[in-house]
Amino acid sequence: MAKRKAIRTDISWSTEDTITVKGLNLCTDIMGKVSLGDMAFLEMTDRLPNERESRLFNALAVILVEHGLTPSALVTRLTLAGAPEAMQAAVGAGLAGLGSVFVGSMEDAAHMLQAKLPDPAAPHDTAALARQIVDEHRAAGKSVPGIGHHIHKPVDPRAPRLFEIAQEEGFSGPYVALMIAVADEASRRLGKSLPVNATGAIGAVASELAIPWNIVRGIGVMARAIGLVAHVLEEIRDPMAREIKAMVEEQATAHFR
Amino acid sequence: MAKRKAIRTDISWSTEDTITVKGLNLCTDIMGKVSLGDMAFLEMTDRLPNERESRLFNALAVILVEHGLTPSALVTRLTLAGAPEAMQAAVGAGLAGLGSVFVGSMEDAAHMLQAKLPDPAAPHDTAALARQIVDEHRAAGKSVPGIGHHIHKPVDPRAPRLFEIAQEEGFSGPYVALMIAVADEASRRLGKSLPVNATGAIGAVASELAIPWNIVRGIGVMARAIGLVAHVLEEIRDPMAREIKAMVEEQATAHFR
Amino acid sequence: MAKRKAIRTDISWSTEDTITVKGLNLCTDIMGKVSLGDMAFLEMTDRLPNERESRLFNALAVILVEHGLTPSALVTRLTLAGAPEAMQAAVGAGLAGLGSVFVGSMEDAAHMLQAKLPDPAAPHDTAALARQIVDEHRAAGKSVPGIGHHIHKPVDPRAPRLFEIAQEEGFSGPYVALMIAVADEASRRLGKSLPVNATGAIGAVASELAIPWNIVRGIGVMARAIGLVAHVLEEIRDPMAREIKAMVEEQATAHFR
Amino acid sequence: MAKRKAIRTDISWSTEDTITVKGLNLCTDIMGKVSLGDMAFLEMTDRLPNERESRLFNALAVILVEHGLTPSALVTRLTLAGAPEAMQAAVGAGLAGLGSVFVGSMEDAAHMLQAKLPDPAAPHDTAALARQIVDEHRAAGKSVPGIGHHIHKPVDPRAPRLFEIAQEEGFSGPYVALMIAVADEASRRLGKSLPVNATGAIGAVASELAIPWNIVRGIGVMARAIGLVAHVLEEIRDPMAREIKAMVEEQATAHFR
Repeated sequence: MAKRKAIRTDISWSTEDTITVKGLNLCTDIMGKVSLGDMAFLEMTDRLPNERESRLFNALAVILVEHGLTPSALVTRLTLAGAPEAMQAAVGAGLAGLGSVFVGSMEDAAHMLQAKLPDPAAPHDTAALARQIVDEHRAAGKSVPGIGHHIHKPVDPRAPRLFEIAQEEGFSGPYVALMIAVADEASRRLGKSLPVNATGAIGAVASELAIPWNIVRGIGVMARAIGLVAHVLEEIRDPMAREIKAMVEEQATAHFR
Repeated sequence: MAKRKAIRTDISWSTEDTITVKGLNLCTDIMGKVSLGDMAFLEMTDRLPNERESRLFNALAVILVEHGLTPSALVTRLTLAGAPEAMQAAVGAGLAGLGSVFVGSMEDAAHMLQAKLPDPAAPHDTAALARQIVDEHRAAGKSVPGIGHHIHKPVDPRAPRLFEIAQEEGFSGPYVALMIAVADEASRRLGKSLPVNATGAIGAVASELAIPWNIVRGIGVMARAIGLVAHVLEEIRDPMAREIKAMVEEQATAHFR
Repeated sequence: MAKRKAIRTDISWSTEDTITVKGLNLCTDIMGKVSLGDMAFLEMTDRLPNERESRLFNALAVILVEHGLTPSALVTRLTLAGAPEAMQAAVGAGLAGLGSVFVGSMEDAAHMLQAKLPDPAAPHDTAALARQIVDEHRAAGKSVPGIGHHIHKPVDPRAPRLFEIAQEEGFSGPYVALMIAVADEASRRLGKSLPVNATGAIGAVASELAIPWNIVRGIGVMARAIGLVAHVLEEIRDPMAREIKAMVEEQATAHFR
Repeated sequence: MAKRKAIRTDISWSTEDTITVKGLNLCTDIMGKVSLGDMAFLEMTDRLPNERESRLFNALAVILVEHGLTPSALVTRLTLAGAPEAMQAAVGAGLAGLGSVFVGSMEDAAHMLQAKLPDPAAPHDTAALARQIVDEHRAAGKSVPGIGHHIHKPVDPRAPRLFEIAQEEGFSGPYVALMIAVADEASRRLGKSLPVNATGAIGAVASELAIPWNIVRGIGVMARAIGLVAHVLEEIRDPMAREIKAMVEEQATAHFR
């Protein structure tokens, strides 16, 4: 029998008459006093937000709840059609697609910013860092995360609005500045308008809120779970899954007929 | 080619410069004005809550975020250990277990209440309905959902606290009364204390908020997604998955050695 | 500390130089000697099949591998589009929809047969049992599982073929007879042709192979995992997920434009 | 309305009386003639294997079915405990962890071999290629995939056995030679025994069978789905999930008490 590392959690524990979460008593400190969004902040940062952090974090999170008939929403609906008794698995299946392509880009943006500026309070040259970032991505043949958008042109409206709220709440700091400088530098170098998009703005604002880049994707996961429940509800009331299946199958096998 | 039913969503749609969710402009009506919990209420009921509804709905939802090392939290951690590049799938896997056994009981409680009292404004005899409910469950050999708890004894502290907040906000109505009457009736008939537990209180309060029973489980799914992200974060920082695997395997295969 | 039930597995265990599965040495008893399908039989029944059982079980299992662009296949493809780095989660998401609606019906058929005929060797009146089954389903307002098909008319070709192989291998026994009698009785009573479909034939043949009804769905799950990997491969080579998303979104939000 | 790329599948299609898979008639060409493992080969390579390929592919696949109480098996069991009505989601959740850490290494081994030797028939210097591979991994600070094992020492018995079967069937070709050369070179350079392990052997043999590296992980996914069904069955009969949860929670929250 090998010697073992101790197993330990510091998130939550229960006794017969109390439930403690992150050091707070669920019934007396949280229920009726802390909103769901602030509870999410607590879960991610180990403390409750102040009012300004709360307004900004919630503004960031609500962006990610709903974006209509995304691939994830379709996955949830198609899964529900086969297993209506397991809506939780339909939502879980929908979340599985929030990987590198869609939600990953806000993680990439936060990573890019936090890696280049590990201590936001340290003196730094924003423009020089932006040039470095664009240089490095071009050298590696990679596109810069968090800029441009294939639908929302010329500007993804969520980005300036989130930056505006960050400004109002005193969080328009070095990460926001760097993200904007990166977009400007990339636009100049590539000769086309590549403004900060929603994922870039979220990556920057999450960084201002001191949320580590490797958990930023989690904000998208939790927020989208809320949205996917709405798609479960609509699918129950007015289903589309069978029609989607029939429509796709008909087109995709037409060459056989 | 068969004639097709039209595919339609009313949840959200986008243009180049706007994103509309449930009839509201995401950037101007929601961001900075609506919290994540109220957004969840909007997604489930097609309208924003007033202040009293908001406080009650958020109090209900935060109960479901975190309950420590649940099977779901272990699933998320064990999945992350094999696929750290896919935290979204680890959270999705964790959600898959929120079925009939744990989260299902609040759905069952809401179903029981809404089926017996489809119009809460209609005249009714609460005590008689409670007797009917207990009779029917006993006749079917089923336990009554939403009462008793194997850990939290004598009373699950979340239930009275949620009822207290419902009272404060003017939502201690016929469903809450019926749930309490059911617990009293069942306790009397079975000769032991079976107070309303958290799932019963949630089922009753969700019914007061006019949330259809068949989507009540969804509140648990969305709230728990938030909690599972916290377990992802702790597992990244201080992992336990490999230890769990080693400990279980050692015990479970000891008889072979 | 509560006294604990011992944790125990009898499926498999390893030492430094051996891996044992269901009592067999993986390297010397299984590899090169046992096919994947026979391994599946071993995992489900704790013994290797003989040649006749092997041919029948494999014939049953291959039916379930592939049925084109099912909702599950679409789920896998749509998930892969968002998380191409996690094909395992895309297959896992695809499996989540194999619930009561599609794959569940073969479980229901097996359950119906095994519940009515727990000991297939006991004397029984097949026609009387079939009448009972149809009566009970009609009384409960439920459709009889395993009969009729919305696409394959008048006859689902997989059913007679599977029964033919069962006959060839000596497994056309009481469960097959009862399933056919149920289909005949239901057709007579409802006045339309409702022949045994693939799920009914699978339920009956799995019962002949002594596979408990509550694990029959598992044959569908394992077989479909194979098929979903083929959809991953085709989606990598010639993707359709983004087109599906665009096509659905365009139709479903047309009323907004 | 944007012009669309055609959606097309070539895997399978159905008419009222036929089901075609990869150009074969399911009922007349596959059922009763093709085993589940050979069907998997068909799904992955677009053709049926010959006898030698069949024996080798099945030997490779059975390795991956079962490895006892892996994290994936625990995930399936813990999920089933909460949602016993959705075994398919429990298996799906179990698959989600087959990512970069465990199953990914056979993909990495296949990728390494196929990238360095895209045309196995072309003249090449095996020893030189092995040196390049080890050099490149050391320069990048990465460990070489497919060699060494933390449990099976000094030799993972599955690797020599799979190579032996490959030899017997005429598939001990350039990829097997290169994999062995890589292990020898790495052992020499690092001064310790690092023999080819099961994932290295699988990566090499899959390459000999002309299976593209980016789908090799899929063999693990499909095979493990079979194994996870066995864990569902054992968990139904003799559950351990609640004990695991209680044991872990007790240890992990001991510091609070």
